[in-house]
Amino acid sequence: MTLDHGDPGDAPSIPQPTGPVVNATRPSAAEEARTVAASGNTATLASLSEDGTPWASFVTYGLLGGDPVLCVSRMAEHGRNLAADPRASIAVVAPDLPDDPLAGTRITLAGVVRRPEGAELAAARAAHLAAVPAAQYYIDYSDFSLWVLGVDRVRWVGGYGRMDSASAEQYAAAVPDPVVPVAAGAITHLNDDHADALLSMAQVLGGYPDATAASCERADRYGLDLRVVTPRGVARTRVGYAEPLSGMDELRAATVELTRRSRQG
Amino acid sequence: MTLDHGDPGDAPSIPQPTGPVVNATRPSAAEEARTVAASGNTATLASLSEDGTPWASFVTYGLLGGDPVLCVSRMAEHGRNLAADPRASIAVVAPDLPDDPLAGTRITLAGVVRRPEGAELAAARAAHLAAVPAAQYYIDYSDFSLWVLGVDRVRWVGGYGRMDSASAEQYAAAVPDPVVPVAAGAITHLNDDHADALLSMAQVLGGYPDATAASCERADRYGLDLRVVTPRGVARTRVGYAEPLSGMDELRAATVELTRRSRQG
Repeated sequence: MTLDHGDPGDAPSIPQPTGPVVNATRPSAAEEARTVAASGNTATLASLSEDGTPWASFVTYGLLGGDPVLCVSRMAEHGRNLAADPRASIAVVAPDLPDDPLAGTRITLAGVVRRPEGAELAAARAAHLAAVPAAQYYIDYSDFSLWVLGVDRVRWVGGYGRMDSASAEQYAAAVPDPVVPVAAGAITHLNDDHADALLSMAQVLGGYPDATAASCERADRYGLDLRVVTPRGVARTRVGYAEPLSGMDELRAATVELTRRSRQG
Repeated sequence: MTLDHGDPGDAPSIPQPTGPVVNATRPSAAEEARTVAASGNTATLASLSEDGTPWASFVTYGLLGGDPVLCVSRMAEHGRNLAADPRASIAVVAPDLPDDPLAGTRITLAGVVRRPEGAELAAARAAHLAAVPAAQYYIDYSDFSLWVLGVDRVRWVGGYGRMDSASAEQYAAAVPDPVVPVAAGAITHLNDDHADALLSMAQVLGGYPDATAASCERADRYGLDLRVVTPRGVARTRVGYAEPLSGMDELRAATVELTRRSRQG
């Protein structure tokens, strides 16, 4: 049997909220992509081989603003490729890939590479070394070159049905999320010790007054992603803080405030 | 200062063996690549976008023989790319990437994709589902297609200075190593409880009679990679079993035999 996307087949339908979702603000695609870019130091480069075929290869990178800084050898095929044709893209996978790989988060950054010079070369070198300390042992060998990928196109995929593109300008202006990469412990604490508060949030702020249980799946600078159990089935919703956070140290106060507001409801 | 590769700079020189290395047999590049391909179910695809630029994107795969079987949506850029131009490659990174990413193992498999049909379609579908169980939830949607990457070119990089290419024929004929992916516990046991045996192997079979310590860094179907400490510095060497192993259950007997032989020396 062939199914069309949009035809749920035998899948259960997802219950819709029956109350207001007070603040559903979430990171933009540009912010999500910038956060993934900042989350690691390894990627896969797509470059063009001499015959025009696409060549996928493992690379390390740092970030100059949001632009990846690669350090590759011209003894390697990808180094020769970049020197001959600067069109390139990299794919980065966010840490902690789930068991279902396509439920994970990943990005593609595409554009044109350039050899940095002068002040940009010094900055690019520092950016690469900051992200890849082991590069100190080979970065100054003459066969290695630094390349800055000037990002023109950004694609972010946050799992099934969560994906979007961002412009070069949006991406360049975006700041990595200060909460996402360090929130795992806080999320465990919320779920283990404050399930009642999460339930109140889901009922009063998240649009599910009939929720019987709620758990936190992610925290970012704007709010919490909640998984909500209702008699109508399982849903996901969003509760946003009063103000965006500028650091992880503000998460506790923000969740206390969410709890207070949901109990006034 | 700019250094040339080959100029060791201030790096210590590596002490050479002073005795015979009795059996240095190790897996071929084709076998190493086949082992990496079998080690996971996620990769990065390089495909060609409509304008001829290279597009790097996260994919899942199974294996039909050694050929990757992808399942991608034509709603995604890479799905449209493959439909328009079948030239493609994938990069796969071996599990347990070390702290120094370029010391890790990775491969590129390049070729041309095809839509499998008939018996090959059934085999490709089964191969993808075996590697990616979650694909059962979307593999039959009409926007998803299976693609088999017919591998023409193989590049394996096993870390610094360990790299080689393999032909399509060599790769197709290679069998994944039955020991590499499951040897971690045995290696720990060798290092924790049989350091004296490893030292004898390094001295008698590995070419380092002046070794003062040895530890095992990897076990594969042909032998052990040893790290050897000598008064002249640290080196790596190889000790090969009497016969290649066909399974992990043969590793213990093979290392006992290596120990016996090294103590006769």
